[in-house]
Amino acid sequence: MNDAPSDRDGPGTHVEPPPERTVVDDAQLALLLEVTGTPKPGNVDRAHDYDDLRFEHFLAGGVGARPGLELAADGDRLGRAFERAVAGMSQQRAGNTQFGALLVLVPLVRAASEGDLTGERAGDLAAATTVADAADFYRAFEHVDVAVEDPPEGTDALDVRRGADAVPDLEDRGVTLQDVMVESTEIDGIAREWTGEFARSFDAADRLLDLDGPVPDRTSQVFLELLAEEPDTFVVTQHDRETAEQATERAAAALAGNADPWALANEFVAEGINPGTTADLTAAALFVALERGLEI
Amino acid sequence: MNDAPSDRDGPGTHVEPPPERTVVDDAQLALLLEVTGTPKPGNVDRAHDYDDLRFEHFLAGGVGARPGLELAADGDRLGRAFERAVAGMSQQRAGNTQFGALLVLVPLVRAASEGDLTGERAGDLAAATTVADAADFYRAFEHVDVAVEDPPEGTDALDVRRGADAVPDLEDRGVTLQDVMVESTEIDGIAREWTGEFARSFDAADRLLDLDGPVPDRTSQVFLELLAEEPDTFVVTQHDRETAEQATERAAAALAGNADPWALANEFVAEGINPGTTADLTAAALFVALERGLEI
Repeated sequence: MNDAPSDRDGPGTHVEPPPERTVVDDAQLALLLEVTGTPKPGNVDRAHDYDDLRFEHFLAGGVGARPGLELAADGDRLGRAFERAVAGMSQQRAGNTQFGALLVLVPLVRAASEGDLTGERAGDLAAATTVADAADFYRAFEHVDVAVEDPPEGTDALDVRRGADAVPDLEDRGVTLQDVMVESTEIDGIAREWTGEFARSFDAADRLLDLDGPVPDRTSQVFLELLAEEPDTFVVTQHDRETAEQATERAAAALAGNADPWALANEFVAEGINPGTTADLTAAALFVALERGLEI
Repeated sequence: MNDAPSDRDGPGTHVEPPPERTVVDDAQLALLLEVTGTPKPGNVDRAHDYDDLRFEHFLAGGVGARPGLELAADGDRLGRAFERAVAGMSQQRAGNTQFGALLVLVPLVRAASEGDLTGERAGDLAAATTVADAADFYRAFEHVDVAVEDPPEGTDALDVRRGADAVPDLEDRGVTLQDVMVESTEIDGIAREWTGEFARSFDAADRLLDLDGPVPDRTSQVFLELLAEEPDTFVVTQHDRETAEQATERAAAALAGNADPWALANEFVAEGINPGTTADLTAAALFVALERGLEI
């Protein structure tokens, strides 16, 4: 007793400070917060499921993606980190839950782990990807069915739906992952982030930080704003441009107070209008905002 | 081209199998699935929040707990793994979200990581805890406010609300963590698991595996069954035994089809009846079930 019994078994009354969330923790939490933002018209949220794509699949996807996110933070090849993240994500019955979100997150996670989470730095990382990254990207399609557009004429050999079978062709032609993204800029909102310094992700992060109230409510608001600004490229792929433009107009009407976002959420689910790319950008925005101090 | 270009940049068309979920992944996923089980009367779920305790706090808690869960899987002292898990969990604005769930999970995670996830083995691990584990347990109370009963007369020195200040007294008296649990068996359903080979957790896991349908629906069902079987000790602590017994009767009525579980969920939230210990046991059951092959 006179000899500080606390020294026998450890630091006694001393208590270590809590562990802080790591970059990977923030990426994982961003995936979980994205699906929790409600209402997020046409997407899975706390109040909406599709028959074969439900809330719990996104939870399992967010847990399963972690080894790939760790690779991104640890400096492994971005393509490989993405492919491993997708492989882990796919270990639930719905298949593709967060493919696009992981694609936009991976360069951001790398930039953050280097201590320089800016659009310019993430854009540089994207631009520096190689043929090996492109091969990883194609391999990722082996793990899940992803709805994609038909490739431009004359580029069938590089159709992502060929998956790993396209790798020798990629390598012959010296196509880098950034080349693939540049090729897809017109038809894919995630590719546009890769080739445009992740402008919408960072802009939406600022808005998440500026808003007040519970984070899932802010997430719902920013999702609607993103959707009202630009047609969702996943809706274009699954339906057509007209449907996507109408979805954007309907989101704008809800934002303007001329429609109820909750009603819109039910309508979109019923019509199978799933603005998944906008949800992916929302996940990226949540990650950037968490890294910049968004409190939960 | 003739020389297998795929060998230059990796395994070419070869695709590695997906990473499997680890024990820690399953523990984290169990925490996330628990809060997703809906309706779970009186607890936060997809359809219910309390003003200061909301769905997103459980997500951040489940992410933050991970370093502690890793320690449990890696063979560190159970008390220390628990204290670190609680410290990480606490890094969100609601404070205590999953204290009890982590307490019941930590021995189960250790048992699973050793490849022997049985009630007997988890009970042996609990029984083998030391004074150092008890000191860790008390330190965990420094990170969060946990509603607890007044200690038995004459044991004020060991009141958990003293937190780390009680550590020298614990050490003087040679109180182990299992001693603390034995002392609390009558008043705490988690302590009863620690001293009773985690019987209810394993039994509920079997029921989760036997049911059909989406896991959150099964989770809701098993939660109701657990609540209908025994009064929730957290409700006893926050209110009184009579309220807890009535809550159990109301859960039984809902199970028997004489009341609507969704209505009960709204009533319990309105009345501030929060069967948190039953939710903690549900998280433990989900972990065991995931380890035994529950598919999401």
